[in-house]
Amino acid sequence: MNKFSIGVDLGGTNLRIAAVDQLGGLVEKVTLGTELSLGRDHVIDDMCAAIQRLSEKYRISAPLLGIGIGVPGIVDIQNGTVREAVNLPGWADYPVRAEIEHRLKTIVIIENDGNVAALGEKWRGAARDFPDMAMLTLGTGVGGGLILGGAIWHGVNGMAGEFGHMTVDSEGPVCGCGNRGCLELYASATGIVRMAREAAANNPGSALALAANADPNFSAESLHNLAMQGDGEARRIFSHVGRCLGIALASLVNVLNLPVYVIGGGVSCAWEAFAPALFTELRQRSVIYAATTPSDPSAADQPTSAFVKAGAAQKTIVTRALLGSDAGLFGAARLPMIANGKR
Amino acid sequence: MNKFSIGVDLGGTNLRIAAVDQLGGLVEKVTLGTELSLGRDHVIDDMCAAIQRLSEKYRISAPLLGIGIGVPGIVDIQNGTVREAVNLPGWADYPVRAEIEHRLKTIVIIENDGNVAALGEKWRGAARDFPDMAMLTLGTGVGGGLILGGAIWHGVNGMAGEFGHMTVDSEGPVCGCGNRGCLELYASATGIVRMAREAAANNPGSALALAANADPNFSAESLHNLAMQGDGEARRIFSHVGRCLGIALASLVNVLNLPVYVIGGGVSCAWEAFAPALFTELRQRSVIYAATTPSDPSAADQPTSAFVKAGAAQKTIVTRALLGSDAGLFGAARLPMIANGKR
Repeated sequence: MNKFSIGVDLGGTNLRIAAVDQLGGLVEKVTLGTELSLGRDHVIDDMCAAIQRLSEKYRISAPLLGIGIGVPGIVDIQNGTVREAVNLPGWADYPVRAEIEHRLKTIVIIENDGNVAALGEKWRGAARDFPDMAMLTLGTGVGGGLILGGAIWHGVNGMAGEFGHMTVDSEGPVCGCGNRGCLELYASATGIVRMAREAAANNPGSALALAANADPNFSAESLHNLAMQGDGEARRIFSHVGRCLGIALASLVNVLNLPVYVIGGGVSCAWEAFAPALFTELRQRSVIYAATTPSDPSAADQPTSAFVKAGAAQKTIVTRALLGSDAGLFGAARLPMIANGKR
Repeated sequence: MNKFSIGVDLGGTNLRIAAVDQLGGLVEKVTLGTELSLGRDHVIDDMCAAIQRLSEKYRISAPLLGIGIGVPGIVDIQNGTVREAVNLPGWADYPVRAEIEHRLKTIVIIENDGNVAALGEKWRGAARDFPDMAMLTLGTGVGGGLILGGAIWHGVNGMAGEFGHMTVDSEGPVCGCGNRGCLELYASATGIVRMAREAAANNPGSALALAANADPNFSAESLHNLAMQGDGEARRIFSHVGRCLGIALASLVNVLNLPVYVIGGGVSCAWEAFAPALFTELRQRSVIYAATTPSDPSAADQPTSAFVKAGAAQKTIVTRALLGSDAGLFGAARLPMIANGKR
């Protein structure tokens, strides 16, 4: 076996741990429940025990490079602490890296979960041939990560990549962050359920309303099922999801001119339902996108730009993530491989 | 004298050329009219003659490092050509770098004017202590440049930094780029005059309408004068300029988490008129900005974040450009100094 490392994806409901070799091969994956209610130390005990089992099993045949851990919060890379993590009570400012390094006697790197998922898709997924990429993760909220020159772009406070809080409707509903009309209000699972419940309230006799009112657990996935069955309102809501993603992506393309933008997270399973509106919006709103992508052959009124015809432009690609929920595991495992002694 | 280079700012109306030493001292500056109507070769003749005079004058006492030229268009850095430049007829795909290198026998670097202005403010201006910065240039349009890790961020097609085409109102007026509600429609001199003319048409008896209708050359500067005299409508328009800048900046802060954002260009002279609305909007719309800046002491309802109190955060700064129209000259002169043999 090749040298390997262990990636950890610490989520609100699952604690997932994998041994990954240096070529990106998944050696073994373990999933545990994250018993956050039992407290920080209990979670760290469970995590360390599982890491220990994996590392002992494979260390016999290959050297362990270290451990990478993706956490849902703002991370202080320098100090190896979690600065703020709403879903991890008791973790703020706790020396988590030092504690785990002490217990496991190996290099540990803590990183934000959005950054880690982006790194995973960059290493082994949809952006694997590109040095620069952005990943938008459409889950309960909308998170993301930005990779520039092959490295995670942290920003000056480790807070970069908050794509979910880009403004798409300056007069839209108030977001938890204080802004109005954030992308997260439209493109997250939570936002989709909100829009569905609003549509149901506005049209109580509709199939959507009947489905939503009958099901207290009505979810973005339920709405996607309705859309796939042809329900007009459900389809309209997903078009709006795509439209809002297109507005935000157009600004990103115009500012960063990256070669590839990856859309992941649970909501990306509804790709077929929202992608057409996304691309329509993006092509219209970003002159850079329009200039660097061959136009849709079915849209006769949009001639391919001279720039693309001349082969002068490297294409702009917007695409689905490939690794699903494993992106975070691959990205976390990648951290000790690229650290080169740097923290 | 120190080693020096020559910076050129090729504008639509002026051709400005300066010798700048390696420590950033301005040695001599020359301004010529850009007689674009006489054609590309005429402009290049004038430019080369002026560069030649400057270089011969100072080459006696110090070595010339090379020549940097900022042009208003998309530049192919690799080939040293201008790909697209609406205001430079005949320049597209002409081997301008090779031609000037051939004539002057020294290194020549061609770069986009927005990028060059950003590099100037980064080297000698408002962002001089920071490795990472964004500059928004509010002129006839809204341009800009992004500096990451001390270097211009070009993007994959040399098109990055188009801050003027970020969406601030997804349902706003149509922009020349095809998008709706671009920042440029509100924060450029052209956009400000459009808003002033609309306000005049809606309220024909107002002081603003009288001033605008009496003056066929009514400009953003005229409106700023009215605002400084206390005209309510003029002040409202500049508040809207600030509001739109705040919306776009909030998205930039949330995505990039840079330490400093510099606002330059002619419209930035109206800073006092638009900045208050800009900061109000930015603080409300970007949780990262709010978390990394001490709150306004006059706003008692906005407690300073724990993050700032703990000294954990490096501040986010939004500030005026310092170099005025010299930013482009300093940035252009800087290009050969940091090229290190790289193109």
